[in-house]
This record gives sequence, C-alpha cells and structure tokens, in this order.
Amino acid sequence: MTDPKATTPDRRPGGRTARIRAQVLAAVRAELAESGHEGLTMEGVATRAGVHRATVYRRWGDVGGLLVDVIDAAGEIDWHPPDTGSLRGDLTALNEEIQESLVVRPSFAVALMAASFHSERAARAQSRLWEDRYAQCEIVVTRAGDRGELPAAGRTDARAVLMSATSPVYHHVVLLRADPDPQLPERAATAAALAAEAGAFSARVGG
Amino acid sequence: MTDPKATTPDRRPGGRTARIRAQVLAAVRAELAESGHEGLTMEGVATRAGVHRATVYRRWGDVGGLLVDVIDAAGEIDWHPPDTGSLRGDLTALNEEIQESLVVRPSFAVALMAASFHSERAARAQSRLWEDRYAQCEIVVTRAGDRGELPAAGRTDARAVLMSATSPVYHHVVLLRADPDPQLPERAATAAALAAEAGAFSARVGG
Repeated sequence: MTDPKATTPDRRPGGRTARIRAQVLAAVRAELAESGHEGLTMEGVATRAGVHRATVYRRWGDVGGLLVDVIDAAGEIDWHPPDTGSLRGDLTALNEEIQESLVVRPSFAVALMAASFHSERAARAQSRLWEDRYAQCEIVVTRAGDRGELPAAGRTDARAVLMSATSPVYHHVVLLRADPDPQLPERAATAAALAAEAGAFSARVGG
Repeated sequence: MTDPKATTPDRRPGGRTARIRAQVLAAVRAELAESGHEGLTMEGVATRAGVHRATVYRRWGDVGGLLVDVIDAAGEIDWHPPDTGSLRGDLTALNEEIQESLVVRPSFAVALMAASFHSERAARAQSRLWEDRYAQCEIVVTRAGDRGELPAAGRTDARAVLMSATSPVYHHVVLLRADPDPQLPERAATAAALAAEAGAFSARVGG
C-alpha cells in the first residue's frame, strides 16, 4: 500500500473522481434551479452531466444523496466574509451578497431551501452549512470590537448581530416573496450595526 | 329577489354554508399539520371533515383552492396586535406569538410556508395575509411615536421596524431549523426597538 493510487479512486483535484463529482453537482444545481427539487431525478442528472447512470446511483444512492452533496460542496468553497473596514460596511456587503443569491433567477439558494422543507437529510446538511457560514462571519463582529466600534462593557454576541442584520433579507425575499428592495441590504445592516453600538447585543456584566 | 335566502346558499355565520366551510378548513389544517401539503388530498379532507366529496370539489375545485381558502380564513380572524404600553413590550409580545405558532408541533404555520414553495396560488395568498398582518401591526410603531419613544426628526418607517424585530424569529426557526431559543423573541424585539430609538429607521429630513 505504498501507492494509494493503485487501490483507491483518484481523488486529487482535477482527477477523474473529482471531475465526475464536479460534472454531477453542476447538473444538480442546474436541474434544481430550473425545475426545483421536485423535478430532480437521478436519470435527469446523469443525462445532463453526461455521466453513466450506474455511476450516479453507486456514488450518490438517491436524490437525497445528491442534495446533501451539493450542499456540502457549497460549504467547501473558499469563501471569506467581507472586510471593508467598518461593521456597517461589512454587514452591508454580506447582505448584498445574500440578496444577490436569492433574487437571481433561477435561484439555486431558494431551490435548496424549498428542497430542505421536504428532505430531512437536505435540511440537516443545509443547517450545517448555515452554521459554518455564520461561524465564519463572526470575525466581522470581532474586528468591529477591535476597532472600538462596539460598547466596551460586555461582550457583543456576534451571532445575534449577524442574525439581526441578515434575517430581514431572507424574510423579505424568501418568505414574504416581496419584490427585492435594493435599499434593504444596507438598511438592515445599518439597523443591526446601530443596535450593536447601542449595546442591544451585549451580554450584561453580571446580568 | 326580495328574499336573497330563497335563491342563494345560507352564508350567515352559523349557517349551513359557513358550517361546512368551518369543518372543511379545520380538516385542511389538521391534514396539513399532520402530513404537510404533500399529503393533502381532496378525498382526505372530505373524509376527515365528514363532508361529501362532491361538495368539496364543487366549492374548492382542487387542493390549491383549499390552501388559498385556509390562508384567507386565517386573515379573517379578528386579530389585534399587542398593546403593552412600550415599543419593546409590543414587539416582544408579537415575537412570542410568532415563535409560538412556529414551534408548536405540528405547526400549521410552517406547513403553509412549505406549501407556498410549491403552489403559486398559495404563495400569493400567503403574501397577502402577511401584507395585511404587517399593515395591522404598524399601529405599534405609531403608538410608540405618539408616546415619544422614537426620534422626533424624520418619520420612522414602521414596516422596517416590524421586519427587523420579527424576521430573526422566522429565520431561526423556519430557515435555520435551529432549536427554539426562548430568549430570541425579546432579544430581537429589543434590538429593533433600540435601533428605532437610535434613528436607524427614520427617513432623513430632506434626505
């Protein structure tokens, strides 16, 4: 076993296994965006990907397996939160990125949310992805604290600031299905930053 | 045509038509909460309601018609926003009511949101209902202004305050599928109230 390539599939980036996965996941994204998770079939994905059906079944098992992998793949992207120099700027940039992903038609992000209402596995994968993304974004609040933008007394709850800033964007577009409001990313970010500066998300000392 | 009752169904509250509607919509809510919109069928609803299948078909047409009517019925409830004497108190009470409707198992509210991802008619009915509810709640912000809780300069955007207060609760429970956080209703309400007091939702004079 000195040469793992002799016994395991080639999983190097750019290798055959990685290439097939990339083709299949691109097909899943395209099918999801076009026809939603209800139109997602193993056959449709295999055909679009130009990959043998048996390969797709063997590697992903079923449509739930495809959904989980496409969500996991989104978490593997080398993404970094914005770093604009101010809390308000960072939250605005983050919200603009979120709104863009939600209003683009067809939206892969919205299709995934719809799918996760119907697949417990997809829902769990999506929760993990969101958890990772919010954890990554906490640095935005940490940096604001380091710059002196937040109250010195009591640690600011980074997660609460991020939720306050971003949730109106999801709510407006995904749940209320309202027309996208180009002002909303900045307005929601500004409100969250002001609330943070006013101590709304600070753990009270001794409280 | 001097006596409309002679030629039209009896639509008085408590009349036969109203009674059948109440039975059918109660059955729709129960079926939705138990098995989601995917398990909703005209036959299942008729059986559970104890109403003749033909009546359900004639009056509601299809499952989409049932969904629209159950959403419209939610809008007919004589609901009033909380009036606790402070903006923070009102928003907290509103958020607690929202969280309660989302975390109860099975949740009719969550089942409706899932359904609206798959029925354009249900989605439109739900948007109308939400629009009405947010419009009804604007009085909460108006009263806060009258009590002097909001900046005197520049009108406060009531809708933006309400969205900022309520959206974290939906986001946390419905989209992130996180365990309900008993502190969240008050924390999100407090953050929105502080942001409003700090002028985050005020239209700038001349701006």
